[in-house]
Amino acid sequence: MDYSEKKLSREDVYRGRIITVHVDEVELCNGRKSKREVVDHPGGVSIVPVDGMGNVYLVRQYRYPVGDSLLEIPAGKLEYGEDPLQCAVRELSEETGFSAGKYTYLGGVSPSPGYCRETIHIYLATELSAGQSHPDENEFLDVVKMPFDEAFRLAASNEMTDGKTIIGLLRAAQYLKQES
Amino acid sequence: MDYSEKKLSREDVYRGRIITVHVDEVELCNGRKSKREVVDHPGGVSIVPVDGMGNVYLVRQYRYPVGDSLLEIPAGKLEYGEDPLQCAVRELSEETGFSAGKYTYLGGVSPSPGYCRETIHIYLATELSAGQSHPDENEFLDVVKMPFDEAFRLAASNEMTDGKTIIGLLRAAQYLKQES
Repeated sequence: MDYSEKKLSREDVYRGRIITVHVDEVELCNGRKSKREVVDHPGGVSIVPVDGMGNVYLVRQYRYPVGDSLLEIPAGKLEYGEDPLQCAVRELSEETGFSAGKYTYLGGVSPSPGYCRETIHIYLATELSAGQSHPDENEFLDVVKMPFDEAFRLAASNEMTDGKTIIGLLRAAQYLKQES
Repeated sequence: MDYSEKKLSREDVYRGRIITVHVDEVELCNGRKSKREVVDHPGGVSIVPVDGMGNVYLVRQYRYPVGDSLLEIPAGKLEYGEDPLQCAVRELSEETGFSAGKYTYLGGVSPSPGYCRETIHIYLATELSAGQSHPDENEFLDVVKMPFDEAFRLAASNEMTDGKTIIGLLRAAQYLKQES
């Protein structure tokens, strides 16, 4: 069934540095009216960097909103209008120092489609060459190298909690299995 | 390394029906100050309902923020202070009509820990008994039954885009494999 909702009006309620929030009045499929709160976010990229020895490189960083340090795949926010692959190349280099000879697109994911427009594009990065990491000023993280299979085990259990990381490792595992 | 950030002050910038937004001034691990935009959300639950024949029950519903109909595991928003399991029982019944003889907790996930406090608690629901679904007023969805293995294949490829659904199917697959 088509349950799509039609925008009737929009009210901007918050404009921040990373997110903006608007509230739309919409017409539901039954003709009634309702409100939808929408967080606008430019979207992001995440990269699963795997070397020739079967290791993956994760980053551990403090996430203020959840008050904890999480193990994540390298990731970054898109500039508005930026090409996702270009962003992936930049973020991988900034956070880990690596450049990759090959990027494979593993699709997009909507982390919170109920109230947020964000899409995260996921790439597998292989044929890695080491270099010097250069995080943004005021960005603090540690690179954690581990066997890909061990990272996947953590992702498939509940020992890893960052959504994009679990999904990136799953899609990378599936792709690498088909390749081998 | 400990890169934790200390809250110095908080400014509430938006208070909505489902989300609220605040901007905190924080002290970084290097002693400098920065701002953190935080979306507050009560959190939610997601349920992977699997019957004795190896079928999983998904729901397809229109997600206004992303402008598309997504295939998702049944899910719902916690009331503030509500027990997640109680919420899971309610949402499974509302959206699919099922009650479950057994709930297995598959852990939590942070869909967007960079700017959102939301945690989604995931449950596997088995020993299903059919009943009448009774969605919230103004909630429209179709229940989609499919073999669990087929759903997992969609989740592991990029044919499914809802984050919690991909993660729920992965953790359920891992759990069911260990059980069998």
